[in-house]
Amino acid sequence: MAQADIGLIGLAVMGQNLVLNMNDHGYRVAVFNRTTAKVDEFLAGPAAGTQVVGTHSIAELVAALGRPRKLMLMVRAGAVVDDFITQLLPHLALGDCIIDGGNSHYPDSIRRTRDLAEKGILFVGTGVSGGEEGARHGPSIMPGGNPAGWPLVREIFQAIAAQVDGVPCCQWVGPDGAGHYVKMVHNGIEYGDMQLISEAYALMRDGLGLPVEEVQRVFAEWNRGVLDSYLIEITAEVLKAKDADGTPLVDKILDSAGQKGTGKWTGINAMELGVPLTLIGEAVFARFLSAMKEERVRASRLLPAGAVAFSGDQAAAVQAIHDALYAAKIGSYAQGYLLMREAARHHGWPLNYGEIALLWRGGCIIRSRFLNDIKAAFERAPGLENLLQDAFFRDEIARSLPGWRRAAGLAIELGIPAPAITSALAFYDGYRAERLPANLLQAQRDYFGAHAYERIDRPRGEFFHTDWSGSGEAATSSGIYSA
Amino acid sequence: MAQADIGLIGLAVMGQNLVLNMNDHGYRVAVFNRTTAKVDEFLAGPAAGTQVVGTHSIAELVAALGRPRKLMLMVRAGAVVDDFITQLLPHLALGDCIIDGGNSHYPDSIRRTRDLAEKGILFVGTGVSGGEEGARHGPSIMPGGNPAGWPLVREIFQAIAAQVDGVPCCQWVGPDGAGHYVKMVHNGIEYGDMQLISEAYALMRDGLGLPVEEVQRVFAEWNRGVLDSYLIEITAEVLKAKDADGTPLVDKILDSAGQKGTGKWTGINAMELGVPLTLIGEAVFARFLSAMKEERVRASRLLPAGAVAFSGDQAAAVQAIHDALYAAKIGSYAQGYLLMREAARHHGWPLNYGEIALLWRGGCIIRSRFLNDIKAAFERAPGLENLLQDAFFRDEIARSLPGWRRAAGLAIELGIPAPAITSALAFYDGYRAERLPANLLQAQRDYFGAHAYERIDRPRGEFFHTDWSGSGEAATSSGIYSA
Repeated sequence: MAQADIGLIGLAVMGQNLVLNMNDHGYRVAVFNRTTAKVDEFLAGPAAGTQVVGTHSIAELVAALGRPRKLMLMVRAGAVVDDFITQLLPHLALGDCIIDGGNSHYPDSIRRTRDLAEKGILFVGTGVSGGEEGARHGPSIMPGGNPAGWPLVREIFQAIAAQVDGVPCCQWVGPDGAGHYVKMVHNGIEYGDMQLISEAYALMRDGLGLPVEEVQRVFAEWNRGVLDSYLIEITAEVLKAKDADGTPLVDKILDSAGQKGTGKWTGINAMELGVPLTLIGEAVFARFLSAMKEERVRASRLLPAGAVAFSGDQAAAVQAIHDALYAAKIGSYAQGYLLMREAARHHGWPLNYGEIALLWRGGCIIRSRFLNDIKAAFERAPGLENLLQDAFFRDEIARSLPGWRRAAGLAIELGIPAPAITSALAFYDGYRAERLPANLLQAQRDYFGAHAYERIDRPRGEFFHTDWSGSGEAATSSGIYSA
Repeated sequence: MAQADIGLIGLAVMGQNLVLNMNDHGYRVAVFNRTTAKVDEFLAGPAAGTQVVGTHSIAELVAALGRPRKLMLMVRAGAVVDDFITQLLPHLALGDCIIDGGNSHYPDSIRRTRDLAEKGILFVGTGVSGGEEGARHGPSIMPGGNPAGWPLVREIFQAIAAQVDGVPCCQWVGPDGAGHYVKMVHNGIEYGDMQLISEAYALMRDGLGLPVEEVQRVFAEWNRGVLDSYLIEITAEVLKAKDADGTPLVDKILDSAGQKGTGKWTGINAMELGVPLTLIGEAVFARFLSAMKEERVRASRLLPAGAVAFSGDQAAAVQAIHDALYAAKIGSYAQGYLLMREAARHHGWPLNYGEIALLWRGGCIIRSRFLNDIKAAFERAPGLENLLQDAFFRDEIARSLPGWRRAAGLAIELGIPAPAITSALAFYDGYRAERLPANLLQAQRDYFGAHAYERIDRPRGEFFHTDWSGSGEAATSSGIYSA
């Protein structure tokens, strides 16, 4: 029997669907699962009639593979990945490749790349996005790790990935943790996109008082314009669904959002790296607040709204909400790219920002037309400092600004929480501010902690301290040190 | 010669000032510093004529102390603390007490309490706030660690702490890391307060176009009302200061804010614990954005404002900004207390929230009249779920809401970034919302990831999944599991 092209460990739904996807593309896949009954069930069920090879031990799995061996783990992130790596090692030879396709935290992938390289084993840590459907019919694949592993997996990964305009949504991202890092940022951006859509929805239903059918129609229409994206599309689908009693199903769903932690990781990483990732941060916090359901219900009976009811032109307000969603989304991606830029600097990853946009165009949750515009921006200027500085996005923001300010103002007047829309606007206004009031803040810090400050009329790195309490007259300031 | 009451290691300014403060209160302090020349300089200089005892080795320092020995470290947080603990251990006896008064991260204090307890040594990790001035004349002291250490340090710490209405700003906070944890939250709140003041300042100067002298007058006036606090007071002082050329000194200060990381810690911890700490999060992010000075200058030349100039009643706008600052501050403290509540639950710390407010009333950077109101709220209801639910704060918010909404709206119309004011308002509107649009978000998650949702008409813990793409007609929903 011909040896298998790749081995896959972990036959949960994602693993099974990736195997079937590889099989569809002509690859022979050997599979193993810790509970081996699952192997037999898979072979007798979804994999019946395919060339998938079932195995019942690590040794048998490894023996089924051609050299150099490629072994993909689709298991729970964390210790389980390390356990399987430990079990695999005695069976592997120099130059074999272990691929982790799970939702691993990128520092683990940095560590695994290094540790396995010392043993002569190649490690590829790859983000795989798109859920069950994506895994089955074409996910977005974001591989990083040992660059020597890329030629081994490239053909098969690019074959099974989503294809958009003939381009596979799979390219090498960068060394060690870069693949899982970019997947993490993808998930953070997904949190932001979902929060923005939720705010637009609340503004229309609770703010403007539109019936759900009308809001459904608006999202369906938005999906034919600049907001064209998977998440807007499924929002329109979701709002069509009726419960058994004929009322909108969405109204029966508990408003307490769950999360699996990748949004947190992104927010924490932004804090660690010093990047103002405000929109995703607010989106993560908004999920936390939603989860405080019982406390909110109690608070709702105690706290005043102090808000007005909407009056005015509904259609114009809907257009403003559209523009706010679009502009805030541009701001969110600009922040996400800022974060990746800083991570690239910090870790020494040569990230290709335009390619990353292409990876996300298909297969994954944030896929959208918009990502083509990001790719185009980086094509025009590969060294682009920030998406907001690109001429196209600048024009889009300029066009959207009146609506953005109007919708943010509406949220505030009507008492509808829109933290992502308003936070992104504050970021925009701060980002375009030559001067921010941080000068006052530095003066305060120098006042109470002698932290010293720099001056606008002196070179950076020259620090001054003032004896502030001698106030009223000219304060005594003195240069104290140069850094 | 009489043995010393306490030993102190680390004669930087904070350490020196604490020693002089202890000496003023009649305590005999033995001191040591790694660079021993500093001991001699201190004895010959600031400590001349005191009963401070200089020592030139760890052995000599320990020998100078009465039993059980109390040794306080005022050294750089991190490895240096562990180094000194290692050096001290061979010289100590069971029941001696090591106190870390540095700016340590609370997980380190948890670890040190446990490790030293195993060796029969008591560890006290204490926050000390108030900068150089506080250390010298009365800081806020937030001790945690081994509860058996508290009786050993209580008298001396309460003597040197700030006193407000005859009550020392020093009480036992809680086990292991609780003291340094509460200090960390204090610092996060300080970030938030400073950001709020900066936003109010920018709204008045850049938004309303008030001259600095007028803004100075406003802050001085605010300091006589509900905003009465150290930070408002020094803001008014700072704005009085003139540069050598007679122009406002603040205008010469570079608007790029530094930070020492404790704000980051607070934001990261909130993400880890799942607490919506939006205002402090925005304050940390705002410092990051301010530090991107050169990029902001470039962006300022490219990006449109799309904002209007202020017209209207300046005095009314100033009052609205006042109300926004006050209400957002209430929101910020409510969030900070939420975070402490969750940390107490997580770590099993029996925190006394009213006492914590008292600790902060004097000595530290966030000291204010306002903290008495927080103490009073917890006296009225020791089990208070949230500050916003207290009758006093509810009334204050109700009174401030029109101004809060007006100032937030002004920031948005005028293009002045006010992320803390607007974010706190979005939090308030979310916190008082019985229903949030997280139901839509849960539907999206179920659509693309089969994450399942709960229903408002079914018990919590019962999960449902819908086959959403069969939309248009009644969707097929089914209960899938109970947790």
